[in-house]
Amino acid sequence: MVAASLWFTDLIVRKRDGKAVADDDWRRFVEALGAGELPDYQISALLMAVYFRGMTVEETAALTAAMAASGEQLVLDEGPYVDKHSTGGVGDAVTLVAVPWAAACGARIAKLSGRSLGHTGGTVDKLEAIPGINLSLTAEELKEQANRVGCAVAEAHAVAPADEIIYALRDATATVEALPLMVSSILSKKLAGGAPAFVFDVKAGRGAFAKEENYARELGGSLIAAAKASGRKAVAVITSMDQPLGRTVGNALEVAEAVETLQGRGPDDLLEVSAVIAAEMLTVAGIAGPEEARRRLEATLEKGEAFAKLDEMARAQGAPAEWWTRLPEAAKTAPVKAERGGYVSGLDAFAVARAANTLGAGRQVKEDVVDPAVGVVLHKKAGEPVSAGDVLMTLRYNDDERLRRSLEFARVAFDVGEKPTPRPLILGVLR
Amino acid sequence: MVAASLWFTDLIVRKRDGKAVADDDWRRFVEALGAGELPDYQISALLMAVYFRGMTVEETAALTAAMAASGEQLVLDEGPYVDKHSTGGVGDAVTLVAVPWAAACGARIAKLSGRSLGHTGGTVDKLEAIPGINLSLTAEELKEQANRVGCAVAEAHAVAPADEIIYALRDATATVEALPLMVSSILSKKLAGGAPAFVFDVKAGRGAFAKEENYARELGGSLIAAAKASGRKAVAVITSMDQPLGRTVGNALEVAEAVETLQGRGPDDLLEVSAVIAAEMLTVAGIAGPEEARRRLEATLEKGEAFAKLDEMARAQGAPAEWWTRLPEAAKTAPVKAERGGYVSGLDAFAVARAANTLGAGRQVKEDVVDPAVGVVLHKKAGEPVSAGDVLMTLRYNDDERLRRSLEFARVAFDVGEKPTPRPLILGVLR
Repeated sequence: MVAASLWFTDLIVRKRDGKAVADDDWRRFVEALGAGELPDYQISALLMAVYFRGMTVEETAALTAAMAASGEQLVLDEGPYVDKHSTGGVGDAVTLVAVPWAAACGARIAKLSGRSLGHTGGTVDKLEAIPGINLSLTAEELKEQANRVGCAVAEAHAVAPADEIIYALRDATATVEALPLMVSSILSKKLAGGAPAFVFDVKAGRGAFAKEENYARELGGSLIAAAKASGRKAVAVITSMDQPLGRTVGNALEVAEAVETLQGRGPDDLLEVSAVIAAEMLTVAGIAGPEEARRRLEATLEKGEAFAKLDEMARAQGAPAEWWTRLPEAAKTAPVKAERGGYVSGLDAFAVARAANTLGAGRQVKEDVVDPAVGVVLHKKAGEPVSAGDVLMTLRYNDDERLRRSLEFARVAFDVGEKPTPRPLILGVLR
Repeated sequence: MVAASLWFTDLIVRKRDGKAVADDDWRRFVEALGAGELPDYQISALLMAVYFRGMTVEETAALTAAMAASGEQLVLDEGPYVDKHSTGGVGDAVTLVAVPWAAACGARIAKLSGRSLGHTGGTVDKLEAIPGINLSLTAEELKEQANRVGCAVAEAHAVAPADEIIYALRDATATVEALPLMVSSILSKKLAGGAPAFVFDVKAGRGAFAKEENYARELGGSLIAAAKASGRKAVAVITSMDQPLGRTVGNALEVAEAVETLQGRGPDDLLEVSAVIAAEMLTVAGIAGPEEARRRLEATLEKGEAFAKLDEMARAQGAPAEWWTRLPEAAKTAPVKAERGGYVSGLDAFAVARAANTLGAGRQVKEDVVDPAVGVVLHKKAGEPVSAGDVLMTLRYNDDERLRRSLEFARVAFDVGEKPTPRPLILGVLR
């Protein structure tokens, strides 16, 4: 057992008493954390004190910078580099659409991504559904490809390890909601990625970490403030996550949907969020003003250049020609039908995520193995009319026992009743 | 490593959010704690949440009762039983005086006591300076002696073990000051001692845990409220602990001073605090009204019955005849002299405690070995006139290296200057 640290007790006391903790103390905290010198029980006490006392923007920036410096950090070349981050949604394939799309318009993206955990997906798991793709790029390979192709995605490994230690304690200590901890966790990994400008897609709603729009706005505002205090540019787009984005949830299914979207045949909501995120990426990177950005995005989509960029990226990372025709498919399908007619008055993103993950699309714990082929296809979304007996969704599965358990979630995902009031998809943009 | 507990996370969330935690949940917490089922990092998060949110009197009583039930509990016979507890002072020999004194007036005291830790002393260490004394009484022996002699003191061993686990985390997590944790720690051990009535001596000042009188009042009030909610009677006496009580700090020295006090030759301040505590013990136990209690105490002191009771208790527990003439004495003495004349404007109890403990009178960590003979004799106390060269205190020591380190504290203990405004010794009585 690690012995209690006296200077760290003093730091906890300062935070507990609402006094400012100096930048040097945050750095010392993160160094000691990385060296395994701090006992869990002291870290937890600090996390709870932060929950109650918060942190100033300066404190958050100091902690975040130290966390970023605790692991591997990319140093990018000069250029119109930009990065995006989603706080986590269901059916959230925006990265797969917006990254090549923005790259097709001149942005450079060297993206370190993660895997799914909990109910939300991860870009690395999604891209791994592409046959032959290599997501284990070295820093040099990632940068070289970003410079040459415009975009590249690799799995993050040794990025901000200090965050992992803190993150692992937050659930069990009821400090997940502490805003500065959330901000430093997200932003430390972005800082380590080296981009000078970020777009944060902050999801709000039943399928998001931030259930309340106001909390999402606070989180977005705090992310921007801390990013700016760290010398980066940043924009936050608050987007709705009450129901899943697009019409699929599952790794290969979402890749296919991203392909369709870049080919101009995708679902409107995924297209719209991706277009807004990509436009903000171009703007915050200084590539184009808002109108010019939107115009360029429309043009590259129409000419097929956006899709061509995704193809180029995938092939640069090892995918074969026409890889999108060779995505894995589940062996069996099961429909979930409407018991009565009316309108889809609600479609619970969280329940859909549980249904998909139970089939094997995601992980409840790190050790779970993901099945790239399985998932959910939604035939109806909120506000759409339904007749009794209509297929609401199709489960694509490989394992009967998993299907049985998945159906428990799938059956409660849809509410059919009155026509609901339409709700906006883009809830706000914070700059 | 113990895995995180989901129901316990829910308890932390409730406390964090300021919602009441049910009695059953506090019981479950203490049971799981005893079973080693809760990870330290979760307990710490709860402690910090309690620091910020507090606990209701009902919650505190439920937690305290569960902690008391986590170990051995005395069940006393019917009778005028009463117990006292000091929150910890320097030179605080009040138990050695007040317990036999109250017993000489008809009270029954079966007392479980602890050892010194940190800067304050412990009754067990003090009594162990008496040659031949046995403080390892069984519950039956303790009760039998209390019934027969009127008083008995034994070392607490398996009392409220749940408190030990929490106590061990409080320092390093900066939650020592959390009032409900303080109350449950103190009161759980008192409840386990089985008495129906308690007198709390809550020390306030430089040498006390409670530096501020207001905090001491809050602590006293909370102790009484929780004791009453637990079905016991309770009184709290707030007493000053800016300078040490009496004129000695050290185990054998304090025993000798208690003997002198019970023989009518002790220092006024120790006599006064002991008399107030003993009177409250008689009153809260229903033995006598306030005036009658004071009258009986004066009578027993004058007739030598109070001292005779201490002698009877010590001999019942194995001490030889005239044990007070055979207390251990340190081999060497070193004076600390005044550098200039004036008045003792301040005498820092904490510095004196550090000086005495460095000589070997107390423990900084549990493993330290106590030397019963060493300590400090104060020749001057606050408000007394001093000439340059006067001996302010004498250090009684056995080890030259310890003396050298002790002098660093001893030399800063006295302030000589203007005559200070006299401050009352008894700051208040809460009922």
